[in-house]
Amino acid sequence: MIILFSDFGLEGPYVGQMKSVLASCEPGMPVIDLMHDVPPFDAKGAAYLLASLVGEMPRGAVVVAVVDPGVGSARRALAVKADGRWFLGPDNGLFELVVRRAASVEAFEITWCPARLSSTFHGRDLFAPVAAQLSRGDTPDFLPLAISDIARPEWPNDLPAVIYCDRFGNLVTGLRAATLPEGTDFDVNGWRLTKLRTFSDARPGEAFWYENANGLAEIAVNQGNAAQLLAVGLRGEISVIRSPVP
Amino acid sequence: MIILFSDFGLEGPYVGQMKSVLASCEPGMPVIDLMHDVPPFDAKGAAYLLASLVGEMPRGAVVVAVVDPGVGSARRALAVKADGRWFLGPDNGLFELVVRRAASVEAFEITWCPARLSSTFHGRDLFAPVAAQLSRGDTPDFLPLAISDIARPEWPNDLPAVIYCDRFGNLVTGLRAATLPEGTDFDVNGWRLTKLRTFSDARPGEAFWYENANGLAEIAVNQGNAAQLLAVGLRGEISVIRSPVP
Amino acid sequence: MIILFSDFGLEGPYVGQMKSVLASCEPGMPVIDLMHDVPPFDAKGAAYLLASLVGEMPRGAVVVAVVDPGVGSARRALAVKADGRWFLGPDNGLFELVVRRAASVEAFEITWCPARLSSTFHGRDLFAPVAAQLSRGDTPDFLPLAISDIARPEWPNDLPAVIYCDRFGNLVTGLRAATLPEGTDFDVNGWRLTKLRTFSDARPGEAFWYENANGLAEIAVNQGNAAQLLAVGLRGEISVIRSPVP
Repeated sequence: MIILFSDFGLEGPYVGQMKSVLASCEPGMPVIDLMHDVPPFDAKGAAYLLASLVGEMPRGAVVVAVVDPGVGSARRALAVKADGRWFLGPDNGLFELVVRRAASVEAFEITWCPARLSSTFHGRDLFAPVAAQLSRGDTPDFLPLAISDIARPEWPNDLPAVIYCDRFGNLVTGLRAATLPEGTDFDVNGWRLTKLRTFSDARPGEAFWYENANGLAEIAVNQGNAAQLLAVGLRGEISVIRSPVP
Repeated sequence: MIILFSDFGLEGPYVGQMKSVLASCEPGMPVIDLMHDVPPFDAKGAAYLLASLVGEMPRGAVVVAVVDPGVGSARRALAVKADGRWFLGPDNGLFELVVRRAASVEAFEITWCPARLSSTFHGRDLFAPVAAQLSRGDTPDFLPLAISDIARPEWPNDLPAVIYCDRFGNLVTGLRAATLPEGTDFDVNGWRLTKLRTFSDARPGEAFWYENANGLAEIAVNQGNAAQLLAVGLRGEISVIRSPVP
Repeated sequence: MIILFSDFGLEGPYVGQMKSVLASCEPGMPVIDLMHDVPPFDAKGAAYLLASLVGEMPRGAVVVAVVDPGVGSARRALAVKADGRWFLGPDNGLFELVVRRAASVEAFEITWCPARLSSTFHGRDLFAPVAAQLSRGDTPDFLPLAISDIARPEWPNDLPAVIYCDRFGNLVTGLRAATLPEGTDFDVNGWRLTKLRTFSDARPGEAFWYENANGLAEIAVNQGNAAQLLAVGLRGEISVIRSPVP
């Protein structure tokens, strides 16, 4: 299975052209559009989002992840094998949290080069053909790298900030719910939010946080728009508060 | 064939995660994204929309339909077999019009339970794996139900209201055109609309109604935006007027 | 491979219904959503956009292209074979640039007619089943046409205007970069734009043009929105200026 994760947006020919390359190289291979509305150009937020989605990916999956503001510059093209899944994308920290949370990691520079490489669309010209090669068991031209040689930004293990906002105004944070002790509240712009299990446990209009289906703490308002009510958007900061145990 | 119909929106990882489960369980099975922009949380409008689309679905199709404001509460997970097609989703009336218009119907409670069931994403965790089981001919854990035991809201056979608005401002109603006698006009906010065959039969700027490609009465303006011109949106009411026969 | 190119938008059941027909007729055939956000009703702009995407399509591909403001009127349904690829769609000039740039072209009227043809959705009812027939090697009911008998608008070989605007405000023009001599600048609303290789060669906030990944001249602003900065949108005109050679 090949899984696509990008900030290309759903518009335009970009995703379709990547999938056309994949279907030409590997006609029978399932290709999943996981997300193409990753907040653009933000490799840091995307790194936490991607890591939250890995647990649901089958072993053996090949993930093409493109959030690549430096495309066309000298940044390296990276292939990382983490716990049996391949991740292909730019060497800009996008795989940092995947790498940190994996039990086994190997890293490679992609040295395979297509006959024609555009300066702005390596997803189609470079990463998609390499994904097809890997998914059919071929070994592309790779150069082994030490894990310490790839971009390793000193980002925290969990990010107390909004990394994704959906069309309902729900705010996904970079905090894994399982790392937060019972009784953890959030403070967002002066609003105090407690944890509930699901939307129907909140009163209409009530803001709260809950563990979303991928394990991240997510801020929501029952029958309302959390982004508007709390006046917070992408990259907005969350203060984590431990309630006093009575 | 597995057909997806939801109010998840096109954004975020939700549809991709459902399709990843389906591709893992049943790699070769075609999966069709029929609609993911069903107006959110509105099981009633969605019921008329879904019923209008059934005629185009192949026999044997497995439809996963998720418009599920009560996810995480005690609402039942339902499987309905209607005229040879399976419908999986919440027991909240979403299948009411499909059931009412079918010649043969069987209903089941889905009692199969996955190893891990999130409280907010039964589409991925419950309905998708059951769809995969059905589509490969397996029998999941089901409990037969009397048709009278499922949610049977007393909604009209045709709904004189807007159930979907597209990006051009065209207004899909819950009225089947074939049920409306010749000479039927609509009154919407004081505008009187007659039936035309297609857009090019209307003058530029003229509001009218026509039978859309799925048999529903749809309100449009040639080269214009009906929602704006008539100042009507989702759930907006339509008065059905029989023209006096001269 | 079947490739879809339309102005249906990503919303609603339209694309899903076309793909359902294709999956029913030809279950194993890859179907690629190339673009569904082609600017609506603009066959002229779409003709340049489509032609720019042909080079990346595999030989043998069957392209269903629907930008069809005249659907339901008497316009002809067309099948064009150009350099080994099939193009199916309305006879309204949409294939004009594909035809003009091809080495070998054959044209046919689609005379095959489905049992049921809606007046507004020929993509689903007519073009999709014909695409399935062609992609499995069948010969549908076709009537040969002289190339001079199809719609042949007298449009320029390259269009100095904006034909697509993406969500970042980047402006795709109908000009092939390879046809513009070195030193070509653009004038857009009094802004003078020079050619750069890629975004990272521009200063933040600088407007420029570059050759996009499909060979078209595209106008962009590094870390900014060109449509807003230059106050130009779809169909906006570009003046092509040859810099004086010093």
